[in-house]
Amino acid sequence: MEKLLYDTPVAVVDLDKLENNIEQMAAMCRDRGIALRPHIKSHKMPEIALAQLKAGAIGITAAKLGEAEEMAIAGIKDIFIANQITGPAKLKRFAALASGSKLSVGVDSWTNALELDQLARETGLVLDVLLEIDTGLHRCGLEPGPQAIRLAQKLRECNNLYLKGIFTHAGHAYAAADAAQVAAIGRQEGEAMVQLARELARAGTPVEVVSVGSTPTARHAVQVPGVTELRPGNYVFYDAIQLALGVTSLDNCALTVRATVISRPAPDRAVIDAGSKALNLDKGAHGASLVRGFGLVRDRPGITVDRLSEEHGILALHPEETLGVGDVIEIIPNHACTVVNLFDTVLGTRQGKVTEVLRVAARGRSQ
Amino acid sequence: MEKLLYDTPVAVVDLDKLENNIEQMAAMCRDRGIALRPHIKSHKMPEIALAQLKAGAIGITAAKLGEAEEMAIAGIKDIFIANQITGPAKLKRFAALASGSKLSVGVDSWTNALELDQLARETGLVLDVLLEIDTGLHRCGLEPGPQAIRLAQKLRECNNLYLKGIFTHAGHAYAAADAAQVAAIGRQEGEAMVQLARELARAGTPVEVVSVGSTPTARHAVQVPGVTELRPGNYVFYDAIQLALGVTSLDNCALTVRATVISRPAPDRAVIDAGSKALNLDKGAHGASLVRGFGLVRDRPGITVDRLSEEHGILALHPEETLGVGDVIEIIPNHACTVVNLFDTVLGTRQGKVTEVLRVAARGRSQ
Repeated sequence: MEKLLYDTPVAVVDLDKLENNIEQMAAMCRDRGIALRPHIKSHKMPEIALAQLKAGAIGITAAKLGEAEEMAIAGIKDIFIANQITGPAKLKRFAALASGSKLSVGVDSWTNALELDQLARETGLVLDVLLEIDTGLHRCGLEPGPQAIRLAQKLRECNNLYLKGIFTHAGHAYAAADAAQVAAIGRQEGEAMVQLARELARAGTPVEVVSVGSTPTARHAVQVPGVTELRPGNYVFYDAIQLALGVTSLDNCALTVRATVISRPAPDRAVIDAGSKALNLDKGAHGASLVRGFGLVRDRPGITVDRLSEEHGILALHPEETLGVGDVIEIIPNHACTVVNLFDTVLGTRQGKVTEVLRVAARGRSQ
Repeated sequence: MEKLLYDTPVAVVDLDKLENNIEQMAAMCRDRGIALRPHIKSHKMPEIALAQLKAGAIGITAAKLGEAEEMAIAGIKDIFIANQITGPAKLKRFAALASGSKLSVGVDSWTNALELDQLARETGLVLDVLLEIDTGLHRCGLEPGPQAIRLAQKLRECNNLYLKGIFTHAGHAYAAADAAQVAAIGRQEGEAMVQLARELARAGTPVEVVSVGSTPTARHAVQVPGVTELRPGNYVFYDAIQLALGVTSLDNCALTVRATVISRPAPDRAVIDAGSKALNLDKGAHGASLVRGFGLVRDRPGITVDRLSEEHGILALHPEETLGVGDVIEIIPNHACTVVNLFDTVLGTRQGKVTEVLRVAARGRSQ
């Protein structure tokens, strides 16, 4: 990379790898007849979302209104907000966005359903909602049982809501011990959802969409007949956590942070200019303890990113390691999604040459 | 707070508390005849830096060029970059900044000293440098002994560098077990630096500035006669880590994140709209294990911010807790500095009313 033009720390995405990752996931979904609705929270960049749509995605998933708004500005119409939208400020924005988009949203409580129904009535819309199901992450959502069926049935009282489907995110796969456990969680995710869809149909509330998510469980959950939609996010980049879970190989990791050695104060220690404000302290939100340090140093397996201050990364080295002040290293972050969120721009490269500067458009859209 | 105008998650700073924190630290330095050079990496906002200068600070400290540049735009002249500036891209920017400011910078290696000296020669400047000393954090810097004295003496060969002083950051105080250990680290920090300054004088390289840092150790290090300068950062806000270390009281915590309950899927669990992209996974970079969860919920001691996904915070509750969908809570983050870095703007309040919207000007200036 042109040293003089591009300073460090900097986030860099290998566009060839990125495009390959996008195509591989799209191909898998095409082969199985599953709709792909990638989660854009991982990249927050309209350019990448558009590439995903071009590769065959039917629409996108967003985590919050700010992300959805930014994608709508780029002309993307079919957006599912895989979250609960509650409270007057957010509902107002949601209505504005819904008037120009094919918007759908999650729901997991009667309280929230009433808010959404009232909003839809007031604005003359019929809103597509998906009931959120908890398949083991224990975050939002109802367990796939009588409670979920009751809420689904009750939603029929809401004349301006249309229960389009059910969705879940098996994020607990990130706490798996190995690839076999990831696979088991993925199958359970799919099976629990398909089973619930059957029960809902029997209870007189059939749903069109049975949507599962998460990059680790993706290829396992889609093998369950009856799953109709997949919402992975991280796969565009992959990262050290995905590697540790056996989800992908090193060669597919598209995002790196480049950093410069600024100090070599001791034989067993060097310091780089990338700290927690570039690499994040993320070791996996749901308990993954498989990663070593705060990122993988590419081509230098003997080096560990041992500690992070805000603007310093402390590397643990073998005393014979030659790394010195001014050397540039490349780090595959533990969690790509939270790293991209720290940068305003990401450099796009092909064969090591910078070809584009991508703006992380939805970064800072906190709400 | 006006619910309709201000959505969540949002970072809020109580301006009265902030001003009190600024004044208390300034008063302590005034009383002891110590120069205050606050670290602006904690807030990244020119308005707050200007308030610190108005309260008596002699200049500011920055962690990187991007922060220093943003402060220079706001008219701040006297800036110490408490870090190593290395490599052609950064040196070019450093020279541009130095031409219009009273800039000083850290150095801890001969390699870097040569780069800085050459730059100064080429641009016709004499650069003020401060030798970085490692008083126990084991990040950058040389240990206060023969190696440091040798580099200080060797710096005299650099005709365009002026060794103005020595500086350290006792960040290992964040890994202390209790307030007594924090105090001991602070005293050691001051004593090691003053001792080194004496040895440097004896070796014929006297220094004007003996600069110590860190909010936890501030009031302890300044009690050592011979310390001339203090560089705390976090004290403008304080946070849950500072509380856990016994550094301050709850009432002085000026920064909170407001979040809305979006789901109450189980009696012992609620979910808020603030996740790791608002609250950060930070539990103390240097190993602090004193904090409980990912922030302190104000006025509700029975609630723990148990887990964070990117856009969800999972609260652990007593089943009788009444918190429901739509309720707004206020969270004192574990680490204020990394939380501010996630937001583009912070709301300034007085007596609970929003009076200002502050832009986090240096956020996203990654380099």
